[in-house]
Amino acid sequence: MEKELALELLEAKKLVQLRKDLQELNPADIATLIEEMRESEEFDEKKLILLYRILPKELAAEAFTYLDSDTQIALIGAFSDKELRYVIDELYLDDTVDIIEEMPANVVSRILSSTDPDTRKQINELLNYPKDSAGSVMTTEFVYLHRYLTVREAFEQIRKIGLVKETVYTCYVISSHRRLVGRVTVLDMLVADEDTKIEDIMETNVIFVRTHDDKEHVAHTMSKYDIAAIPVVDNEDRIVGIVTFDDAMDVLQEENTEDFAKMAAVVPAEDSYFKTSVWQHAKSRIPWLLVLMLSATLTGWISSRFEPQIAVIPMLVSFMPMVMGTGGNCGSQSSTLIIRGMALEEIRLKDFFKVVFKEFRIALLCAAVLSVVNGLRVLITYKDPALALVIALSLIGTVVIAKLVGAMLPMAAKAVHLDPAIMANPLITTVVDSCSLLIYFTIATNVLGI
Amino acid sequence: MEKELALELLEAKKLVQLRKDLQELNPADIATLIEEMRESEEFDEKKLILLYRILPKELAAEAFTYLDSDTQIALIGAFSDKELRYVIDELYLDDTVDIIEEMPANVVSRILSSTDPDTRKQINELLNYPKDSAGSVMTTEFVYLHRYLTVREAFEQIRKIGLVKETVYTCYVISSHRRLVGRVTVLDMLVADEDTKIEDIMETNVIFVRTHDDKEHVAHTMSKYDIAAIPVVDNEDRIVGIVTFDDAMDVLQEENTEDFAKMAAVVPAEDSYFKTSVWQHAKSRIPWLLVLMLSATLTGWISSRFEPQIAVIPMLVSFMPMVMGTGGNCGSQSSTLIIRGMALEEIRLKDFFKVVFKEFRIALLCAAVLSVVNGLRVLITYKDPALALVIALSLIGTVVIAKLVGAMLPMAAKAVHLDPAIMANPLITTVVDSCSLLIYFTIATNVLGI
Repeated sequence: MEKELALELLEAKKLVQLRKDLQELNPADIATLIEEMRESEEFDEKKLILLYRILPKELAAEAFTYLDSDTQIALIGAFSDKELRYVIDELYLDDTVDIIEEMPANVVSRILSSTDPDTRKQINELLNYPKDSAGSVMTTEFVYLHRYLTVREAFEQIRKIGLVKETVYTCYVISSHRRLVGRVTVLDMLVADEDTKIEDIMETNVIFVRTHDDKEHVAHTMSKYDIAAIPVVDNEDRIVGIVTFDDAMDVLQEENTEDFAKMAAVVPAEDSYFKTSVWQHAKSRIPWLLVLMLSATLTGWISSRFEPQIAVIPMLVSFMPMVMGTGGNCGSQSSTLIIRGMALEEIRLKDFFKVVFKEFRIALLCAAVLSVVNGLRVLITYKDPALALVIALSLIGTVVIAKLVGAMLPMAAKAVHLDPAIMANPLITTVVDSCSLLIYFTIATNVLGI
Repeated sequence: MEKELALELLEAKKLVQLRKDLQELNPADIATLIEEMRESEEFDEKKLILLYRILPKELAAEAFTYLDSDTQIALIGAFSDKELRYVIDELYLDDTVDIIEEMPANVVSRILSSTDPDTRKQINELLNYPKDSAGSVMTTEFVYLHRYLTVREAFEQIRKIGLVKETVYTCYVISSHRRLVGRVTVLDMLVADEDTKIEDIMETNVIFVRTHDDKEHVAHTMSKYDIAAIPVVDNEDRIVGIVTFDDAMDVLQEENTEDFAKMAAVVPAEDSYFKTSVWQHAKSRIPWLLVLMLSATLTGWISSRFEPQIAVIPMLVSFMPMVMGTGGNCGSQSSTLIIRGMALEEIRLKDFFKVVFKEFRIALLCAAVLSVVNGLRVLITYKDPALALVIALSLIGTVVIAKLVGAMLPMAAKAVHLDPAIMANPLITTVVDSCSLLIYFTIATNVLGI
């Protein structure tokens, strides 16, 4: 459904038709439509709540989770207490927590006061897990079964409580101390005899994570083992929640987006490109630009040291961009692959020397090709063997140094618990620029005897 | 289990103990262990097949899917026909296809000859879908139900065929022409009356993709709508397969890894960092380095045009790295955010002018801050208002041009069906370097009157 049509129907008060059309849509698409409609000027908050109230209750509550926090705040402000309670009741607990995390304090207290004490307690617990931890993305709604139950008893329990849980097809088996001891699927139970004990059909080799594990590690684990939901246990091995595949996919996408931003020297934004204002964009880009610009002063200082040589052979200047550029590119190739390898948990800190040695050998190969090609080009263009030698030697030195710096900086960052992603292209380039110029001018001075 | 221990037990022929230890592991971990063991020199193919045969049959077949293609080829070579048939039978169809795609022709024909004609036909169909299409990552193993079945009949059908399917919990409802008309979950059926018709309880608003859709789009759609499996339909709207969340997660990770590589001017590799040889690494890095190095000749040529001015004021050289560096950083900030936005389907081609206008305003803000800061720095350091003016003006010009180029090139690439990711940092930097120097020296020449 197009937003123009929806706006028209709303304007013309053809609400029955509008309701009919909206019902055809998926909750996620309704949310997108509402957000698009909010962009047009004549769509005020009154129309927003009217539109929302047109929707069948359940569909409305589902669509609510997909809305951006701006629209959610606007709606919560317009909701009656009853409406708010209905929406919160329909939401999965982890979605409620996500919403609460985005809201200003007064809205939070309104939401919390419309939940029952038990839910409130669970929400508060979830809110207390550190940002980016498994605990912060898990839901406490899952089915657990006692190990001594029979299949029949288990099914009764699932029927009683299961239907509202986010995942009922996989149940987690616990001991008397609520310790996670196994996993059993509805399928396993369907094919088993009704009097079989759960512990006799459960799988004991359960992959799990801990509440304080990094959420990125959780997503990688789920992806590695191809599992749709992973149990989360606390320090005493008691199961306290599960993380489901949809949240894991969101985590992967968010973490990748964050890495892309950091690697381009941008402070990661919370919102999408268009939802972030011009002002906000500038604010997230300026800090690194300033740092990098001012640190380029060092490179400038190095080149100013060689003014006497430049005065003798001004042509030296014309090779500066090429030498610096090649160094930067070589460095960023290495750093990017290594940052990515670490993000995918393929490269670990203990691999430091293995990585450095590998990059060293790769650098020699790259250096050989680049220096031969460019050396020959200079020789043919300028008919000056000494100059060609300077360029070839400078490239060898620059490529090797750049690849080593590109390999070592991200791993060093990881070692001191910084995010390796900040050691990407821009920072590497700034470091490598200085090295390249130093190498280039030193070689030029010695070979050309100036 | 550590590979040293496993090797020791194997060496000492303590196979019963080894089998017991291995059984404790998850199939994915067994695969990792085997790959690690293969790295040690004393572990030959004889030991590989011995180790594999120690494993319980089913666990062995499962572990097989997680192995890298090298190890798989080695194992297939050592398998008896019976062993091969067992493994292939146990595999999901999409995993078999993944394996076949990696194998040399003689191995492929051995695999195909050990499958039954029906499976062979399905494999061949899957192999015919274009690389990176939904068809190439889907599995043909799913449960479909006719719309006129009752719940009782449906359950009978599921019991008969369902247990071997990758996902039985969601069934797809088809019309008499095999057209996809709905979706029903086992839960829906469990709570419904046994005589209810499937079409009365099915959800008709089914999200689906087409066989030729890009697999990245499939993954984004699943992530957007939070669904664990998505049906794939052909040109006549008939359901031909499903894509499951685990494959979607792999697609997201692979595509992201590819984008990271491309954005660092590296030709994406098939394997992980360590599995790619030094030689291969060099081969995937040298082409872009050469292109970028040679195109930096243009930048060199521009700076050589200004040798007379440099001869008059040699200090001009010392600001070159800072101006070029800032330009490169500004450009790569914009290009990275826009490439990522397009990958996430947040930015579309029709947003071209919106993006360019937004980047223009962001550029003005960044330019203002950078030029004031650096202008003041130069003024204070060198007490030369004219030089400070040159630097400030150059930065304004450079930042604006860089951000516009960074915004436009990725979108232009997309418009001509190139991957926007190649328009990232390194290429942008090379383009922007030339622009920056041109701006810088032109302003210097005019303001300083040289």
